[in-house]
Amino acid sequence: MPVVHVNWWKGAGEAERRQLVEEVTGTVSRLAKCPEAAVTVIVTDVEKDHWGLGGKLAADL
Amino acid sequence: MPVVHVNWWKGAGEAERRQLVEEVTGTVSRLAKCPEAAVTVIVTDVEKDHWGLGGKLAADL
Amino acid sequence: MPVVHVNWWKGAGEAERRQLVEEVTGTVSRLAKCPEAAVTVIVTDVEKDHWGLGGKLAADL
Amino acid sequence: MPVVHVNWWKGAGEAERRQLVEEVTGTVSRLAKCPEAAVTVIVTDVEKDHWGLGGKLAADL
Amino acid sequence: MPVVHVNWWKGAGEAERRQLVEEVTGTVSRLAKCPEAAVTVIVTDVEKDHWGLGGKLAADL
Amino acid sequence: MPVVHVNWWKGAGEAERRQLVEEVTGTVSRLAKCPEAAVTVIVTDVEKDHWGLGGKLAADL
Repeated sequence: MPVVHVNWWKGAGEAERRQLVEEVTGTVSRLAKCPEAAVTVIVTDVEKDHWGLGGKLAADL
Repeated sequence: MPVVHVNWWKGAGEAERRQLVEEVTGTVSRLAKCPEAAVTVIVTDVEKDHWGLGGKLAADL
Repeated sequence: MPVVHVNWWKGAGEAERRQLVEEVTGTVSRLAKCPEAAVTVIVTDVEKDHWGLGGKLAADL
Repeated sequence: MPVVHVNWWKGAGEAERRQLVEEVTGTVSRLAKCPEAAVTVIVTDVEKDHWGLGGKLAADL
Repeated sequence: MPVVHVNWWKGAGEAERRQLVEEVTGTVSRLAKCPEAAVTVIVTDVEKDHWGLGGKLAADL
Repeated sequence: MPVVHVNWWKGAGEAERRQLVEEVTGTVSRLAKCPEAAVTVIVTDVEKDHWGLGGKLAADL
């Protein structure tokens, strides 16, 4: 049942997302004591010009 | 005032989103006892290679 | 697989949430062409003093 | 530490996002009494045909 | 139409939320070129023992 | 910079959240190639009577 939203900068590829989903699901299912099949992970790649950090666009850092 | 975020797999078209918004708005406004005009629905189409289910990318299932 | 987040003002009770989940799930599963069992709905009751509308706290309206 | 998600209609450009991030970060850091460096702002541009308002797609309004 | 979610640590009071809503709404409406009445801000106070930073619970920092 | 939101059923305690934050941060920082200090994890415990699964409240399952 757990639902995980990961927001990160665009740049990671499919291999990284696959590994992310595998590891996060393992962690969450073990700690939530639920089957892995019940875990959803949604990954959002955000462009650096849509991400603000410290008052600036990350694209400007 | 209600705000609804729908995350689903890419694939549904504009007709489905139009119907989704109409029906969800009707349900929510009736149950929240607020005007339909006050309901916002944001639909996010997620690629299957950005969606994890049961520890795997949905694109790999 | 669809994941729906509903944010609304505190006030609706369990009966309304039960109905909300039933109707939204029916709508989403039909339009996404997925089984009802695959639909998750997370309902968040927000206090009016944590909700801003038109530049004011809803609690002040 | 604060995390701000802004969802709005596609249309604003990079200059508007830069200004948004600067002003929102200033407001939040001052009110949360935390350094500006600790504030994250994530901006999501939503197409009008993915945004429902009053039961209709914004694209149809 | 813009919808803003602010997540921050529990601690700020109603006066800070009122100011937050006023200022963020002003910024967003000006940059999105929409009326202030169209802006929604949802504020979520998060306990430090539900917030992770740098791999630790903020409550442990 | 990554921001992770975990929504799960109320029930896990502080020890589980501490472990969740540690492991998820390790995974995300390694795959995003960013320092652990840059990772934020926000954990939301959701009551079963606010969580819909398969058209029913989880509290009714």
